[in-house]
Amino acid sequence: MSRIIPVFLAGLCILLLGPTLGSSSRILVVPVDGSHWINMEILLRELHTRGHSITVLRSPKSWYIPSESEIFSSINVTMLEDKTDMSYYNKLLLDVMECRQSGEFLRSFCQQHLITSMLDKGHKILASAAATMLDDPKFMKKLTDAKFDLMLTDPGLTIGVVLGSYLKLPMVFNVRWINTGESHFTIAPSPVSYVPVPGSELHDQMDFPGRIKNMLLYLHSLVEQYFIINPAYSELLQKHFPPGTDLLSLQLAADIWLVRVDFVFEFPRPTMPNVVYIGGFQCQEAQPLPAEMEAFMQSSGEHGVVVMSLGTLVSALPLEVTEAIAAAFAELPQKVVWKFLGEKPSFLGNNTMLTKWLPQNDLLGHPKTRAFVAHGGTNGMYEAIYHGVPVVGLPLLFDQFDNLHRLKVRGAARLVEAKSLTKENFLEALKDILETPSYRDNIQRLSQLHRDQLMSPMDTAVFWTEYVIRNKGAAHLRAAGFTLPWYTYYSLDVALAISAVIAACAWAFVFICRVLCCRKSRRKTKAD
Amino acid sequence: MSRIIPVFLAGLCILLLGPTLGSSSRILVVPVDGSHWINMEILLRELHTRGHSITVLRSPKSWYIPSESEIFSSINVTMLEDKTDMSYYNKLLLDVMECRQSGEFLRSFCQQHLITSMLDKGHKILASAAATMLDDPKFMKKLTDAKFDLMLTDPGLTIGVVLGSYLKLPMVFNVRWINTGESHFTIAPSPVSYVPVPGSELHDQMDFPGRIKNMLLYLHSLVEQYFIINPAYSELLQKHFPPGTDLLSLQLAADIWLVRVDFVFEFPRPTMPNVVYIGGFQCQEAQPLPAEMEAFMQSSGEHGVVVMSLGTLVSALPLEVTEAIAAAFAELPQKVVWKFLGEKPSFLGNNTMLTKWLPQNDLLGHPKTRAFVAHGGTNGMYEAIYHGVPVVGLPLLFDQFDNLHRLKVRGAARLVEAKSLTKENFLEALKDILETPSYRDNIQRLSQLHRDQLMSPMDTAVFWTEYVIRNKGAAHLRAAGFTLPWYTYYSLDVALAISAVIAACAWAFVFICRVLCCRKSRRKTKAD
Repeated sequence: MSRIIPVFLAGLCILLLGPTLGSSSRILVVPVDGSHWINMEILLRELHTRGHSITVLRSPKSWYIPSESEIFSSINVTMLEDKTDMSYYNKLLLDVMECRQSGEFLRSFCQQHLITSMLDKGHKILASAAATMLDDPKFMKKLTDAKFDLMLTDPGLTIGVVLGSYLKLPMVFNVRWINTGESHFTIAPSPVSYVPVPGSELHDQMDFPGRIKNMLLYLHSLVEQYFIINPAYSELLQKHFPPGTDLLSLQLAADIWLVRVDFVFEFPRPTMPNVVYIGGFQCQEAQPLPAEMEAFMQSSGEHGVVVMSLGTLVSALPLEVTEAIAAAFAELPQKVVWKFLGEKPSFLGNNTMLTKWLPQNDLLGHPKTRAFVAHGGTNGMYEAIYHGVPVVGLPLLFDQFDNLHRLKVRGAARLVEAKSLTKENFLEALKDILETPSYRDNIQRLSQLHRDQLMSPMDTAVFWTEYVIRNKGAAHLRAAGFTLPWYTYYSLDVALAISAVIAACAWAFVFICRVLCCRKSRRKTKAD
Repeated sequence: MSRIIPVFLAGLCILLLGPTLGSSSRILVVPVDGSHWINMEILLRELHTRGHSITVLRSPKSWYIPSESEIFSSINVTMLEDKTDMSYYNKLLLDVMECRQSGEFLRSFCQQHLITSMLDKGHKILASAAATMLDDPKFMKKLTDAKFDLMLTDPGLTIGVVLGSYLKLPMVFNVRWINTGESHFTIAPSPVSYVPVPGSELHDQMDFPGRIKNMLLYLHSLVEQYFIINPAYSELLQKHFPPGTDLLSLQLAADIWLVRVDFVFEFPRPTMPNVVYIGGFQCQEAQPLPAEMEAFMQSSGEHGVVVMSLGTLVSALPLEVTEAIAAAFAELPQKVVWKFLGEKPSFLGNNTMLTKWLPQNDLLGHPKTRAFVAHGGTNGMYEAIYHGVPVVGLPLLFDQFDNLHRLKVRGAARLVEAKSLTKENFLEALKDILETPSYRDNIQRLSQLHRDQLMSPMDTAVFWTEYVIRNKGAAHLRAAGFTLPWYTYYSLDVALAISAVIAACAWAFVFICRVLCCRKSRRKTKAD
């Protein structure tokens, strides 16, 4: 406890002085929708209290980004395809479940294939949207005239990167994922011998087949980057940027990467000086629940409550899966709060409360909460760690398999596959998590480490955002290696030159030896 | 200015609460002497105020480490050869000056050769000293019984690493240099295409010959590590540690590396999660000078003062060099404060004050100070940056050439080689630094960036030291790659396996094609 005080006070000092300190600046924001937006909004709220003026580019079809807000003004632009809605992700879920039928080695490639075709389509749309903006002199003049001091963007949506680079703005990324995967793979050396590639469901101690799988997935991501993603932007970049510019080079020119990672959760791996870790920056102490929900929590008695939520993307699991889950819940002595959007299961236990929305952070921080049934989205995982609640994972899409795998290898979670979920195996996993103390002990240890920071992740995020504004960038933290061609970066030209010299010396040595030997033998012959 | 307030207040909160917060622990310290000790002592002083009990292992022949102190108790042990004194470094200086006669490409190798023979000798002595300690059951019992909570050491002296590992203590390094060079090269991926090897005098944007030189120096450092340093400890480690342990593996098992680097000064490069940057942590606002010195500073009028110091290792430059420096100083309108230990020059200007000791930090922070003539030791460089004073560099040994090169490429320093120093070229460099505003502007910009930190480097150092104590280590920040054999780390085994499969497939393809072709041609022959 005592160690929390200075961090708290330090944060307090910054917060209290905040509004007077933050020299007001104009920040242009290009966010990604869904849970990415939730992350961005929390940071924007903080920047707003510090007096910065914020402008958000949003799609009129946005799910989460409001067109009007007290904390920012918005500009409507076409960003994503109209058809990309929840039903798209529900369909994707079924395809992923199909993939999960394959063996451990193949399913990652199957899922990666689905993502690749998504990326292929998505980046073409994004590039065309960015081109429309750059080709619209009125729109670009509006942005230029606004004299923004910073582009704050989630590079998962490349429009922010392209616009920021075009406007020559200092750039801060609020990021976890970027194009081909986890953002570290773009910016930091990533030895695939111990750094698991996104989607591999491996950990940092791999056996030989694991390392082969990891290498193949890594090679696949390179193909994606250089043959699918970069080419989608080549026409746009050729037209508006200096020759030789590709999307990757624009991304690597960002000043600061606020990466939503904490090494309590992520496996330790190389990083870079302009990467700042803000994993769990959205976590807060729990606020009081609405009266009805609080009464439900208290009614659970000594057994406590299980909280279930599957996040923002997928609205509905297949009906047979929800039926099995509902049946398993009905057999628990605990009460259950379940965020539920789809078709209701035919049978529901008396202990189970369905709700269309739940205050996830406040529920996880409630003293009655005993376990969290989650899909494994990053935000939920950090909230589970922050509040020290063990997890039953039901991964559905994207990084969720990897995320839950990280908690599992730390002894803080159990995984159940949606494709093979039955009432029995789900109940067994739930009971194991609820009754075996080690899961709770392990996640509480993670919680303790996660909270033991020099400065809160949110204050860190605000500090570095303002750092880039006041210093007009952070070029001195950007490695020179980013601008090298790959054969130079990996010193292949140098290796070739040194090898050539060694080979020449060896050849010369052999040649001289032969000449000397010949002379000797000739002399010998003559002497004979 | 406004941005300094929150950092200051945050620091203040920690400092005020310090003594009550730091749960008192027992810290065992194995420092390196000289300027390394100065760095360690500053941290120890801070840890002492926070209530930790500190025990220092010191050599009875130590130059700087006192046998008695208010902030720590000490245990005398044999650590370094008796003959290693200032005269040794004065002799080394002459050898290095000899090396500097060679061309740019060769001199680094010449200097490296001197260092290698130093390391060879030094590590044998260190290994034997460590063996004496481990073989002394009474001494080891004393250490074990003391139940230390932490080994805080400068791994430049390997005894701390060996003892800490043997006692299974959590380990924090206060470090810049380690065995073969800059500590990053031990712990973080270091692409030699843009990360200059210590002693190379290169920067992060190298031409092709530069990259060849860098690669050769890197290969040389590998030879040093694996054929000179590791073998020096093999007998000791075989006797007292599990099979397969080498010095490098003990170093890589440290929990936190407090690295005395800031990327305002160092070129940005890959790093690791358990590396914490505390570059310039010894810097403080200037304190008032002794009355006599203050009077001298004020007497300089509008021209101001030049401060000269060549650090702690070398006591004397060759007489012809000091004569030339003195003559150049005499022609300046500025006054000069010169820390001087050797034979006095025959002629000294009225404006020049020689002194055996000077309060370097307070002088550099004095408003009258216009330039700093320095040997380029790390501490002096950070003090120059902190106070924003441009530098005329006179590098003598070790990292000093590299350090000054870093300030030079940032437009904040001029270099003069001791071997070719004349009154004229030294005076020209001095006048350039004093009269061209860009040098001052550039170092003031570095100063601004260096001071713009989330938390002061000293508070950061204290936080992470106590973090390791209260969490009994920081294993979750240590990369799994450290324990892999090199061919696995670089995925050579995986590459071999994948290549073999590709080759086999290609062979099978060719084989099948041939078989089919043969059949076809046979049929054709038959048909004919």
